[in-house]
Amino acid sequence: MFKGMLKGNMVIGQSGGPTAVINQSLVGAVLAAREQDSITGILGARHGIQGIMDENFIDLTTQSVEQLELVAHTPAAALGSVRLKPGKAECEKVFEVFRKHDVRYFFYIGGNDSAETAHIIAEMAKEANYDFCTVHIPKTIDNDLKVTDHCPGFASAARFVALAFMGDDRDNRALSGVKINVVMGRHAGFLTAASALARRPEHEGKSDGPHLIYLPERVFDVEQFKQDVKTTMAKYGRCVVAASEGIGDKDGNPIASTGERDSHGNIQLSGTGALGDTLAAFVKEALGKGARVRADTFGYLQRSYPTIISEVDAKEAREVGEYAVHHAASTGEAGSVAIRRLSNVPYTSECFITPLSSVAREATEMKDAHINDAGNDVTQAWVDYVAPLVGELPKMGDL
Amino acid sequence: MFKGMLKGNMVIGQSGGPTAVINQSLVGAVLAAREQDSITGILGARHGIQGIMDENFIDLTTQSVEQLELVAHTPAAALGSVRLKPGKAECEKVFEVFRKHDVRYFFYIGGNDSAETAHIIAEMAKEANYDFCTVHIPKTIDNDLKVTDHCPGFASAARFVALAFMGDDRDNRALSGVKINVVMGRHAGFLTAASALARRPEHEGKSDGPHLIYLPERVFDVEQFKQDVKTTMAKYGRCVVAASEGIGDKDGNPIASTGERDSHGNIQLSGTGALGDTLAAFVKEALGKGARVRADTFGYLQRSYPTIISEVDAKEAREVGEYAVHHAASTGEAGSVAIRRLSNVPYTSECFITPLSSVAREATEMKDAHINDAGNDVTQAWVDYVAPLVGELPKMGDL
Repeated sequence: MFKGMLKGNMVIGQSGGPTAVINQSLVGAVLAAREQDSITGILGARHGIQGIMDENFIDLTTQSVEQLELVAHTPAAALGSVRLKPGKAECEKVFEVFRKHDVRYFFYIGGNDSAETAHIIAEMAKEANYDFCTVHIPKTIDNDLKVTDHCPGFASAARFVALAFMGDDRDNRALSGVKINVVMGRHAGFLTAASALARRPEHEGKSDGPHLIYLPERVFDVEQFKQDVKTTMAKYGRCVVAASEGIGDKDGNPIASTGERDSHGNIQLSGTGALGDTLAAFVKEALGKGARVRADTFGYLQRSYPTIISEVDAKEAREVGEYAVHHAASTGEAGSVAIRRLSNVPYTSECFITPLSSVAREATEMKDAHINDAGNDVTQAWVDYVAPLVGELPKMGDL
Repeated sequence: MFKGMLKGNMVIGQSGGPTAVINQSLVGAVLAAREQDSITGILGARHGIQGIMDENFIDLTTQSVEQLELVAHTPAAALGSVRLKPGKAECEKVFEVFRKHDVRYFFYIGGNDSAETAHIIAEMAKEANYDFCTVHIPKTIDNDLKVTDHCPGFASAARFVALAFMGDDRDNRALSGVKINVVMGRHAGFLTAASALARRPEHEGKSDGPHLIYLPERVFDVEQFKQDVKTTMAKYGRCVVAASEGIGDKDGNPIASTGERDSHGNIQLSGTGALGDTLAAFVKEALGKGARVRADTFGYLQRSYPTIISEVDAKEAREVGEYAVHHAASTGEAGSVAIRRLSNVPYTSECFITPLSSVAREATEMKDAHINDAGNDVTQAWVDYVAPLVGELPKMGDL
């Protein structure tokens, strides 16, 4: 225990796009906090920062473990989430509320925007000489946080995507034609790249789809795309395409979007079928009017579908929540929890703390070594990285 | 055994949109056929009628039971499927091939179009005095075949939809706004109506979504839709909508489509995000530009997603395949297999045979008693009908 132990209430909140396991982190943190003498009260903020400003709290000391375990297994943020990026006035309001409620610990579960929010508040506390500890608990299906090997929430979404492509590839095999599936991931292609797990390793180089994978890390060239589809059709008589919602042209313009923006200034890419329809139109131009071309946009199911949860992901999401509380209570130091991969077979990992500034704002993208030279597929190194996180997939039968 | 037992080869094929359990029917029929003395060879037609015309057969007597069981658990038609509706010339060609290969049994797994194909061929055989028995094995996620209580393939797709709405409703609860999900079902709303299972029975009348359900059996009135969404937003501060891809206006025009048609003359509704985007635009007109409105189109995942399979559905899909072969071998009479529900608690059912003409061509739609008066929701009678087919759903936790 550190000198001059912080004693007081804690606030925990959830922010950004929910995941299938974000409640594991919440429950992990709450159950760990209940065992800390230094944490006197546990307040859950409804809808993240918004709930703090509104003093819209729920007491998290009273629920049965049974109820909390049910919450842990339920997708999407049980406290409610928020897309608000607080400015100076909002942060001052948050402080006022923290002081009023003698809040000494703040845990914010979210992505890099949430880490930045936590960072700003930690800096304000320091300036105000207010004894306070804030820890960011990582979550994002996009897998785009810096420092950490991977992000809680990603592997369950990746499992949804891999299974979806396994089934959809059978469907395409049965009726032929071109099938385009648009996968979430604004700036990073991790989730789209997880579609490669739908190919059976023992069928390497055979006909399993997806046959083409387009990631936002590479420029999307429409003419090259048309040629890629033609080549695949000539080879297999069918073609399954995985395309990230974030693909853009050489000038960085999205291939398709509604033009709408959220409060973080992000263009709306999800919750619309525009990109899929645009890509389908390109394919029809390439193959002719009579071609059977279909496009699906997997949308919000990727982050919220129940029962399709990676065991590794659920376990790690729980662990980062627990670790955040243990770290805060034992050191009083701000930071962001990250994951270090220790071994691949069998898969093992551990948590560690990285400075908030190392995670805030900036995001990562896929390594060059994980993308093929043509920019239309992933490499074996990518499959080796992602497979242990997603876990075993069912076998498919052939005639 | 009937007098003058038919002895010869059998052909089996799969047709129309695949389902998650159509291979259960195939494997059920093949394993049953292997035990019949009257069935000498078992030929699987690649891509249904097309494979017969092309004499593109696979010998189904040689695979191990282990391999077939793996196929049975694999979504989508393992033999390949087809959308071809044969005309007179095609049927004559099919005959020629059947005679050439001494085919005396023909099993066709599909919907009402496939039943019609089977019916035409049965009639041709009768006219030609060719001893021949054809049995239609039902399958369709649309659940729109006549006579039968329900169709194999429907309950697994319904399970996918119910789970999707369970997760998506948590997502919408976390971030609020309006969420529209477009569900498959061209003329019948059965699959869209299955979204109602996402509401927890113990929360009757509470806030669980979907809050609004629009079916093709009722005219879709845009102004009424806008008003329904406004009313729901005022009540819950959020709104989850289930809309069938087949909804149309008072003149029967689809609310949105690409205008493309398949070889059956059906307008393309799936494999495009057009309807979801159109409905989202209506909501933005109603609530104002700033409203958070998202639309997903579940698409082909509904019929092909692995691991989300209803146990009742898998069992019955196997049974209709077995029953078709037992019926054909023991009576030599043409027909279509149907399912009769015997009891709801515990759920039990049995197979029976109905004339091909009673199933061919025409489709059913939802009963009036299963749709509410306002035409924007289902009734408890519908939930009672569909729940035993879909099976138990996971519990969701709340704070």
